[in-house]
Amino acid sequence: MRTSEGVEWGLHCCLTLAWVGGADPVPSARLAAMFELSPTYLNKVLQRLTRAGLLTSAPGPRGGVRLARAPERITVMDVVAAVEGPDPLFSCAEIRQRGAGAEGAAVREFARPCGVSTAMRRAELAWRRELSAQTVADLAAGTPAASVARIRANYARLAGSSV
Amino acid sequence: MRTSEGVEWGLHCCLTLAWVGGADPVPSARLAAMFELSPTYLNKVLQRLTRAGLLTSAPGPRGGVRLARAPERITVMDVVAAVEGPDPLFSCAEIRQRGAGAEGAAVREFARPCGVSTAMRRAELAWRRELSAQTVADLAAGTPAASVARIRANYARLAGSSV
Repeated sequence: MRTSEGVEWGLHCCLTLAWVGGADPVPSARLAAMFELSPTYLNKVLQRLTRAGLLTSAPGPRGGVRLARAPERITVMDVVAAVEGPDPLFSCAEIRQRGAGAEGAAVREFARPCGVSTAMRRAELAWRRELSAQTVADLAAGTPAASVARIRANYARLAGSSV
Repeated sequence: MRTSEGVEWGLHCCLTLAWVGGADPVPSARLAAMFELSPTYLNKVLQRLTRAGLLTSAPGPRGGVRLARAPERITVMDVVAAVEGPDPLFSCAEIRQRGAGAEGAAVREFARPCGVSTAMRRAELAWRRELSAQTVADLAAGTPAASVARIRANYARLAGSSV
């Protein structure tokens, strides 16, 4: 019960694209080199972000990815949902309706959601609400200026060496 | 990235124990029959709840489990943490410190937590806070009286048939 490492990768890539991405697409191999990530696995993460409409992908030898919209309009929730998929944290199998305990129950009794499920979903909603309240632009704004300058310089060097 | 089905099982078992458990321990096979669960896998869940101090376990042919403390003092978070373990939802691999992007960074730069990690943990804290605000007693209080009466009657029948 953990977010995959792809969530961290996806968020850092969106941040990097916010800082260095202009009109030119950023090759996924270069993003992988920025963080020493597996290019193959990073490609899968970037594909998920692209399918979710957070990135646009340009094919070809000079291709790559860029943000599909402004960092202000990409929430942390968007990235988590793109990488992890839409399934809820808690999935309810309605065991209350099964077995000896449920014998003789009226069907209408189960029309009302189970308290267990309601409690779990209430917590999940709080989690989603916090993730939705923070954008890639917020993360960028919270990063020290010196770090951003270093990342941009390192990126430029990498681009110059044609990675 | 999902809670295991053991979370639902554990919460429903705690609720059942709150309703039917008196001084006598409840055999795990009987709890399994109440919800038509795998006795083997349910045993693992009950062991986790016992290790976490939420249940006490009595050995022997007339043994079983009971709540280790009042339902008011067992939170949903307690049960989730017992079943899922203490790991956070989001585990940060600090990829910001790796690769070409981190070259030339001062070590002190990374003393401050990563914004990505902070954002994820803030959401997780909201999730934990909601789970901690709800107890087994709250879940019990939210259950319709007719359901509780039925569960108690079904449990008594099962106990009478010596399951």
